[in-house]
Amino acid sequence: MAVTYARGFRAGTAACGIKAFTAGASAMPSGQKDDLCVIHSAYACDTGGVFTTNKVKSASVVIDQLHLQRNRVQALTINSGNANACTGAQGFKDALLMAKLSADRLDLDPDQVLVSSTGVIGRYLPMDAIRSGIAQACGSLSAEQGVAAARAIMTTDTVPKTAQVDLDVAGATVRVGGMCKGSGMIHPNMATMLAYITTDAAVEPGLMSKLVRSIADRSFNQVTVDGDSSTNDSFLVLANGAAGNDPIQAGSAEAEELKAAMEQVARELSRAIARDGEGATRLITVKVVGATSDGEARTAARAVASSSLVKTAVHGGDPNWGRIVCALGYSGAELALDRLHLTIGGLVVFERGSGVNVDLTAVRRAFEQPEIEIVATLGLGEGSAEAWGCDLSEEYVRINADYTT
Amino acid sequence: MAVTYARGFRAGTAACGIKAFTAGASAMPSGQKDDLCVIHSAYACDTGGVFTTNKVKSASVVIDQLHLQRNRVQALTINSGNANACTGAQGFKDALLMAKLSADRLDLDPDQVLVSSTGVIGRYLPMDAIRSGIAQACGSLSAEQGVAAARAIMTTDTVPKTAQVDLDVAGATVRVGGMCKGSGMIHPNMATMLAYITTDAAVEPGLMSKLVRSIADRSFNQVTVDGDSSTNDSFLVLANGAAGNDPIQAGSAEAEELKAAMEQVARELSRAIARDGEGATRLITVKVVGATSDGEARTAARAVASSSLVKTAVHGGDPNWGRIVCALGYSGAELALDRLHLTIGGLVVFERGSGVNVDLTAVRRAFEQPEIEIVATLGLGEGSAEAWGCDLSEEYVRINADYTT
Repeated sequence: MAVTYARGFRAGTAACGIKAFTAGASAMPSGQKDDLCVIHSAYACDTGGVFTTNKVKSASVVIDQLHLQRNRVQALTINSGNANACTGAQGFKDALLMAKLSADRLDLDPDQVLVSSTGVIGRYLPMDAIRSGIAQACGSLSAEQGVAAARAIMTTDTVPKTAQVDLDVAGATVRVGGMCKGSGMIHPNMATMLAYITTDAAVEPGLMSKLVRSIADRSFNQVTVDGDSSTNDSFLVLANGAAGNDPIQAGSAEAEELKAAMEQVARELSRAIARDGEGATRLITVKVVGATSDGEARTAARAVASSSLVKTAVHGGDPNWGRIVCALGYSGAELALDRLHLTIGGLVVFERGSGVNVDLTAVRRAFEQPEIEIVATLGLGEGSAEAWGCDLSEEYVRINADYTT
Repeated sequence: MAVTYARGFRAGTAACGIKAFTAGASAMPSGQKDDLCVIHSAYACDTGGVFTTNKVKSASVVIDQLHLQRNRVQALTINSGNANACTGAQGFKDALLMAKLSADRLDLDPDQVLVSSTGVIGRYLPMDAIRSGIAQACGSLSAEQGVAAARAIMTTDTVPKTAQVDLDVAGATVRVGGMCKGSGMIHPNMATMLAYITTDAAVEPGLMSKLVRSIADRSFNQVTVDGDSSTNDSFLVLANGAAGNDPIQAGSAEAEELKAAMEQVARELSRAIARDGEGATRLITVKVVGATSDGEARTAARAVASSSLVKTAVHGGDPNWGRIVCALGYSGAELALDRLHLTIGGLVVFERGSGVNVDLTAVRRAFEQPEIEIVATLGLGEGSAEAWGCDLSEEYVRINADYTT
């Protein structure tokens, strides 16, 4: 169900043969795996989006920013295997054509279609293949194809990533569902993250764009490192009103509830990305509480979760709390060592300015679980946040040493 | 010779048994490898230093900042194997005692001694061992022990790192020599970099502190990532006047010449660090020219050299220029794709907004050399800089997965 869990959303997929060169697929003839999907809504959606901060932006990102201005989006077309980035004027033409081909099939205007691409940089999209893929995907739209869509957008991901939740809003049951891809998050210099959350809530126009950044800040931005964003990163939220509730107004209690539900889906998807990090064997959750602000807590948590040395220590089952303290120290967040309290897997390892003489075997056992929770209590204020990472393994190097070739 | 190349500098070393747990040394009984050195100058030095920006600072860094205020340093005492960080009040006492024990042996005041530590965080220094090590090192001072000193400060380094150069200043021949350690630079969240440059130039008091930051910005700071600094990072420059030249004044042509010579030593040491990166098999030099400023060029070069995806691509011999363009894009430096010109090993791979159809076999051959030069011409201004990195290999993960245990 996933991205088609909310009423009025359908998905269709196609195998166009563009998803070559992805790890694990190289031995398989391209064309066998789905590499394109179309998501269609029965009604025009209120839509919000946040995109990469990279100065080099995929043509698809630029086109989406343009199309979002009129806020009447009703479909998404996404391909994997080719990022359509660094492709010059041809790239823009191709992204626009992707939208137009989909719009023609779905009886929409081109600016009602958003497009996303993920994969290798610097190659032109094979538009003939995309054209027939769009025809095929639009011809097979169904509410049952949510997981197939999540699978079609994968690159080095090993599992499709979906989540969904219900909530009651003003007497109506509202559904929220989502999907995402992205697995190069260990040090995500360029591994594209794409995420889509759909809901059938009725909302006042503009609400989604008001909520999307705050949701991203407490979810997807916490599995990545600020500034290190891909050419293609995109997070889109769409609300089509099919639930029939009274439209939710910005600032209302209902808006907060809807935001919380969407954030829950976003956080579940974020954890799925971290768990499926390239070569990862363990999910690392870092909680920071007692920071001077939520922003500082986010910064500190992210620094720990993205530290290569913390990641390798976790991989090796090595209770090296010094690396965690060090990452907190360079994060830029306010820190007072004498107030810091640090636990790994529930065991206190640091307090009052120095390490605690704990049972290292117990700590090591905590590191060896499939999920490890690191909690840093800073003792400075009320700010809190989580971040998610994974361990860094030899396998990560193998995956990335030979991605295009 | 190295750090003792300049006249009036002598070094002594000792094996105290604190250098346990370092990679490659675990099978060897601790105590066999030197893990402490003392550098002594016959005359009080004009001294400048730059230190970690980490909010968690080793006790040794704090003590050095204090001792530098009187600017009459005449000796350095450095230990490896233990960072004396996160050690609370005891750590400060121990760092001060290290200085005092050395001063007593050398007939100096304690504030004439600077101390550095590198190694595991969160353990107290074994002061009995340090006491006897200082006695032994001070008892064996010699101008021949420069390389031995460089070896004593190693942790996961595989080779000692030294450099030296001569220059003529105002009729006198001035010598400049240096040493450094640091090999966890692939993603240097916490791998300490220590660097020391000595010269026998006579200089006006305060000149070294005026020059040190600018030298670091064009050398050691370009093998690391801004903000990701260890608890212990230190770079010290000492000038003792033994060359007998007229004291060099700030702002003079001679000061520029001395700075250039020191920068040359610093850059040679920086390249040695990159070449010896943990698990590294190749040195990557990134040159950025045509940036809007030198600062922007430094930022852009560093982003490329520190990108895990560029590093793994180089390791795999994979001519994936898209990752280089992407790293330039997220670096924060000004970038106009249509003006960008990019070469790998002298072969043009990107120009005028898109990739060039080059002989991929030739590009791959360039990646397979022990040194790979990536040159990005931004076409925006006069700013230029270099940064150095190395490839990211499976071996890096192995080294860091099990550092303390």
